Amino acid sequence: MENKIYDYARKVNYYETDKMCITHHSNYIRWMEEARTAYLNRYGCGYRKFEEYGVVSPVLSVSCQYKQTTTFEDEVVIRVRIKRYTGVKLEFGYEMTNAKTGALVFTGESEHCFLDARHMPVIVRKRFPELDLILKGLVSDE
Amino acid sequence: MENKIYDYARKVNYYETDKMCITHHSNYIRWMEEARTAYLNRYGCGYRKFEEYGVVSPVLSVSCQYKQTTTFEDEVVIRVRIKRYTGVKLEFGYEMTNAKTGALVFTGESEHCFLDARHMPVIVRKRFPELDLILKGLVSDE
Amino acid sequence: MENKIYDYARKVNYYETDKMCITHHSNYIRWMEEARTAYLNRYGCGYRKFEEYGVVSPVLSVSCQYKQTTTFEDEVVIRVRIKRYTGVKLEFGYEMTNAKTGALVFTGESEHCFLDARHMPVIVRKRFPELDLILKGLVSDE
Amino acid sequence: MENKIYDYARKVNYYETDKMCITHHSNYIRWMEEARTAYLNRYGCGYRKFEEYGVVSPVLSVSCQYKQTTTFEDEVVIRVRIKRYTGVKLEFGYEMTNAKTGALVFTGESEHCFLDARHMPVIVRKRFPELDLILKGLVSDE
Repeated sequence: MENKIYDYARKVNYYETDKMCITHHSNYIRWMEEARTAYLNRYGCGYRKFEEYGVVSPVLSVSCQYKQTTTFEDEVVIRVRIKRYTGVKLEFGYEMTNAKTGALVFTGESEHCFLDARHMPVIVRKRFPELDLILKGLVSDE
Repeated sequence: MENKIYDYARKVNYYETDKMCITHHSNYIRWMEEARTAYLNRYGCGYRKFEEYGVVSPVLSVSCQYKQTTTFEDEVVIRVRIKRYTGVKLEFGYEMTNAKTGALVFTGESEHCFLDARHMPVIVRKRFPELDLILKGLVSDE
Repeated sequence: MENKIYDYARKVNYYETDKMCITHHSNYIRWMEEARTAYLNRYGCGYRKFEEYGVVSPVLSVSCQYKQTTTFEDEVVIRVRIKRYTGVKLEFGYEMTNAKTGALVFTGESEHCFLDARHMPVIVRKRFPELDLILKGLVSDE
Repeated sequence: MENKIYDYARKVNYYETDKMCITHHSNYIRWMEEARTAYLNRYGCGYRKFEEYGVVSPVLSVSCQYKQTTTFEDEVVIRVRIKRYTGVKLEFGYEMTNAKTGALVFTGESEHCFLDARHMPVIVRKRFPELDLILKGLVSDE
């Protein structure tokens, strides 16, 4: 299966700016979640799918590199891909660009695990082979 | 029982400002929640108490009047009181002042009902006489 | 000129939910801003226009009536209109519906004034006749 | 000068939880800012000081490691220290613990630079020797 990426676009809201007149840095971590959600929906393993399996996927770690500022009404394009999937952990990569200028404004990563209804770690590879197959197919080496 | 009010103080955070260099207006509604939570804890019917009863208390309506702006590092004092309690609905009033200048910066109200675990409306007066008594005693006519 | 309304749609984000598993009530006030911004852009008097005039338009008051809950991945359609414009003050009305069920989930209002660069109140009617004309034409009696 | 650390405590607000019934991960990055602000105020180089110099200090990068969940009404103690200061860049370290259990819930880092009023990079070492001296004295090797 070809490498999968996804471009999620959204405009900066007024309430996301701060008194430096730029997007407050805490919002990018929320945009990562928005883009990740849209990505997983697009590739058939969205939140509903996870819910069917009784699985939640909390965040283990996040890293953010701020390259350029953005501000109110800028359109930001968030390119998401799965960088790594081990059957137990999942790692996303994010590149955000300013839609108008094309400039890279942000790069980031997030790492996730899987928990079942009793909040115990899940080995997706063993418990949910179908989901495992989808996620394996989504890993992008690029 | 004497009329009960409560003063909850908190500083404006950097991430709560916007590009007009003032506190974004959406934050005041969150501060109302913070102050209401502290108030209910103070008077023995906090979140834990509600949880024991299996009751949640969602917001039915909110109104906000912005009198003066505030900004980063301002200390805001939020005076909370219960304006009305009918046994079915609860209404809070809020007055926020700038701690330094004493100026009134905000007034607001919020109205709440009570739902049980099955999300059905609860008549507190009938189902939880103990809680009913506490809430009745907290109403402030001022 | 015909009455002007605008429908702005957006999905509920995961980070907008709370531990009651519903959209936290504070987010609706932010969605009102999103919808108001889109409305003004649509009708030729967006933020850039206001900036050209050196005018900002802070919020004087907000009221929110919560009719039904929404949650993660629900699509909410926000119908915005200008209810009143006096030449000095501007009032927006909002009706939010669940796109899937059509149910009314929220109604709200917001009231705004106009300030110039020195943060002094502006009588738009006198200082900016062009903007005044646009705003007058947008008032919807419906 | 002895190594400087600072403990900043705060309770989790209701509006900071999500539908997993835990603190949404995006809030920790805001708490880092709250703690960093309190730290700098405590050691005489708070926001006002920076403003006097005409200097802002944007975030270059952030990393977050989530160790344990927290939720509404948990008190979180945020231990802040300056890990590195080069005269051009500043790096903070954060360790958050649950006040009740003492458990480590989060570790993080943030990296900052300095910009002047024209948004040009500032070499603090050269331009603001007094501020440079304070920051040097705050670096904690621990």
